[in-house]
Amino acid sequence: MIPADALSELVSMLGERLTTGKSDLALHGRSETWHPEMPPDAVAYPDDTGEVAAIVAVCARHGIPVIGWGTGTALEGHASAPRGGLTVDFRRMDRVLEVAAEDMLVRVQPGCTREALNTELRATGLMFPVDPGANASLGGMASTRASGTTAVRYGTMHDHVRALEVVLADGRVIRTGTRAAKSSAGYDLTALFVGAEGTLGLITELTLKLHGVPEAISAAVCGFDTTEGAIDAVILAMQMGLAPARMEYVDLATVRILNAADDAGLPEMPHLLLEFHGTEEGVAADAARFGEIAADLGGHDYRWATRAEDRTRLWSMRHRAYHTILATRPGATAIVTDVCVPISALGQAIGRATAEIDASPLDGPILGHVGDGNYHAILMVDRADPAEVAEAKRLSDAMVTHALELGGTATGEHGVGLGKLHLMEAEHGRAWDVMGAVKRALDPDGLMNPGKLVRQN
Amino acid sequence: MIPADALSELVSMLGERLTTGKSDLALHGRSETWHPEMPPDAVAYPDDTGEVAAIVAVCARHGIPVIGWGTGTALEGHASAPRGGLTVDFRRMDRVLEVAAEDMLVRVQPGCTREALNTELRATGLMFPVDPGANASLGGMASTRASGTTAVRYGTMHDHVRALEVVLADGRVIRTGTRAAKSSAGYDLTALFVGAEGTLGLITELTLKLHGVPEAISAAVCGFDTTEGAIDAVILAMQMGLAPARMEYVDLATVRILNAADDAGLPEMPHLLLEFHGTEEGVAADAARFGEIAADLGGHDYRWATRAEDRTRLWSMRHRAYHTILATRPGATAIVTDVCVPISALGQAIGRATAEIDASPLDGPILGHVGDGNYHAILMVDRADPAEVAEAKRLSDAMVTHALELGGTATGEHGVGLGKLHLMEAEHGRAWDVMGAVKRALDPDGLMNPGKLVRQN
Repeated sequence: MIPADALSELVSMLGERLTTGKSDLALHGRSETWHPEMPPDAVAYPDDTGEVAAIVAVCARHGIPVIGWGTGTALEGHASAPRGGLTVDFRRMDRVLEVAAEDMLVRVQPGCTREALNTELRATGLMFPVDPGANASLGGMASTRASGTTAVRYGTMHDHVRALEVVLADGRVIRTGTRAAKSSAGYDLTALFVGAEGTLGLITELTLKLHGVPEAISAAVCGFDTTEGAIDAVILAMQMGLAPARMEYVDLATVRILNAADDAGLPEMPHLLLEFHGTEEGVAADAARFGEIAADLGGHDYRWATRAEDRTRLWSMRHRAYHTILATRPGATAIVTDVCVPISALGQAIGRATAEIDASPLDGPILGHVGDGNYHAILMVDRADPAEVAEAKRLSDAMVTHALELGGTATGEHGVGLGKLHLMEAEHGRAWDVMGAVKRALDPDGLMNPGKLVRQN
Repeated sequence: MIPADALSELVSMLGERLTTGKSDLALHGRSETWHPEMPPDAVAYPDDTGEVAAIVAVCARHGIPVIGWGTGTALEGHASAPRGGLTVDFRRMDRVLEVAAEDMLVRVQPGCTREALNTELRATGLMFPVDPGANASLGGMASTRASGTTAVRYGTMHDHVRALEVVLADGRVIRTGTRAAKSSAGYDLTALFVGAEGTLGLITELTLKLHGVPEAISAAVCGFDTTEGAIDAVILAMQMGLAPARMEYVDLATVRILNAADDAGLPEMPHLLLEFHGTEEGVAADAARFGEIAADLGGHDYRWATRAEDRTRLWSMRHRAYHTILATRPGATAIVTDVCVPISALGQAIGRATAEIDASPLDGPILGHVGDGNYHAILMVDRADPAEVAEAKRLSDAMVTHALELGGTATGEHGVGLGKLHLMEAEHGRAWDVMGAVKRALDPDGLMNPGKLVRQN
């Protein structure tokens, strides 16, 4: 509940940009996946940092929880409001503020999406490569330390946020980092706020690293006798310094679904899909070298191409996979697992996950950002059926337990939110207490996105 | 002062590995540069993490400052003991614990030096590329977020520390990070301890990322009519995705010193030195492409080579530069500046710095890791002459003030220590208060490397 005097302060500041309408609250309490609806008590649509700071200051004074909202595409209930409070929706703060081409930097507001940014960059020869699939907001991507298919070459949001402007829990505004490429000037607060899921403050501006659009791109696809062979090919390619821009794994279950759905005629085996970025000669050489590696490790039917339309055709199985998988069970909701393990253990992790899914009543084809050791099982459930949701959560937790035994992590790129909170102690041990100490130091009243990430009181 | 009962506890634990001899204390109070000697009251030489934790617990109980020590090569007095206390020297914890070749990771103790690590890796085809010049310990390099000539391609210590074991201020031992290539599981504590200069805890184990030894290397050298032309060539090369492994600037003053010292016969102009890593064809193509870029921007006498002995010859001006510069004034101590600016502002920054050094009685040739926007003026002083030391500090502070105006940082790779403490508020504003809050949360009694990095009470 928001006290009446706080509400009237917010309304007098924001006018119609402060809403308490039922449908708007419901929208901001929803999550992409199985989490139940947890709506806030109000939603604010600020126009600038000054307004965000003033909103947060009002909430601090009245003890009102504050939750940041980008596009609502988080997968673990990050932006839901389990304790009510005020959701700050950044959709009006969506501008590209500055493109600094020589420094290969861009300054954006948090509500700007990655696709909008790349559209804005089109004439510059520069690109922002982090691609989590969804057209997420950049503030949200930073807050969940998102990554996706291109992380194997370009890195995650951790590697792309050069500097931040942040509104702290008491309404103070700080700037972290500089525009310089590196710094040894004290604690890396930028890295602390990236992945903090809004529990330490609200990001109101980001300075992001850009990359040159590659002169040429080649794409390749290859079937493998075994998952192990595919992963060994990946390991060898990385050790040889091939540095593919994307390196995706598609499992046998997915290939069978694609063949059944539209007669794709793919060899019934796991596949790797690759993309190389560089010069004309470089990407041709890289694709050829990968072919040699694959041939030694049980690879079949290796094909590669550099023309855009041929590349799209080669990658179509990956592009169609998620929706074709979901279409096998109309009305189903996907619960997507997200463990990440050292690549040497990836074959073992995927092998055990496949066996556990095979032994379960649920279907769960596996796709993987295999160069990072990160894979996703697309567990399909009827979210109205508690037994199915529980079974999916059991499978996901079993994958996490195994990943932790293998030296991995509960979440490679989706984040903690509500869905992975119960696994943090197992992953971090006493280091989770240290996260709690940092949280209390920066947000002593526990108002920033409460209920998420750190131990709950 | 260490109370007698604390000292006897430490001696009964460590025996002769706890010293209070004058020469040992003096050695651990010394710094590479102008800072006065600030010795600790005792030095401990632990053998393992358990001992470090026990030592820190004793110090916590008795209120004794604890300072970590690697090789003593820090440049800003990071490891001196302005408040006395106990220095923990990691020289006996210098082992490579595990090489995980498939995961391209290595686990080391903090006292292991980067050269010792690379020697150990020789048979594996892997390398650890971060190269700050000095043969520093890896724990020290992590603690100062060190980098050096290869950061333009491979990144800094920030990019190479995958996981840590840390002894906290109260003696608890935590592990941060995992062996997985990426994670979204909570606050990035690894990034928080990297660059914390031992003020939040002592690093007792590091898991570091490795890279494949490149199949081929090419080196190149080029004179430029102007510093601006050289920097424009660097910017264009980066935008074109050339990704050199090293890209070093040597100023006109340095070239004149080299010509005078040993008749080097170099064209009297600023130079760039480059190194490319990749395949045989790739590094040849990169070197050729850079030549085309340089020719358009006032480059002269461009030469490149791939054979090891030819490469060494091309780079000899860079390898000899520091010592040849120092030899111009026998007995002088170098005060080395370390600002880092956005690369678009680097010409302006070096231009103003050169003018200010020219107007000063001190000499200060400039070398730069120019792909990062980081440069060093080698200011030569008689450290017994307070006026000269003050003039060098004035010049260094003026470069920092200008760098901050240009969106840069006071220190690109050397760190804060004692020498840059007075500049932190100017660089970070209120964010420096946040660093203080984190410090108090993790080290409430202020015993971990006191007097450094955060605001002093």
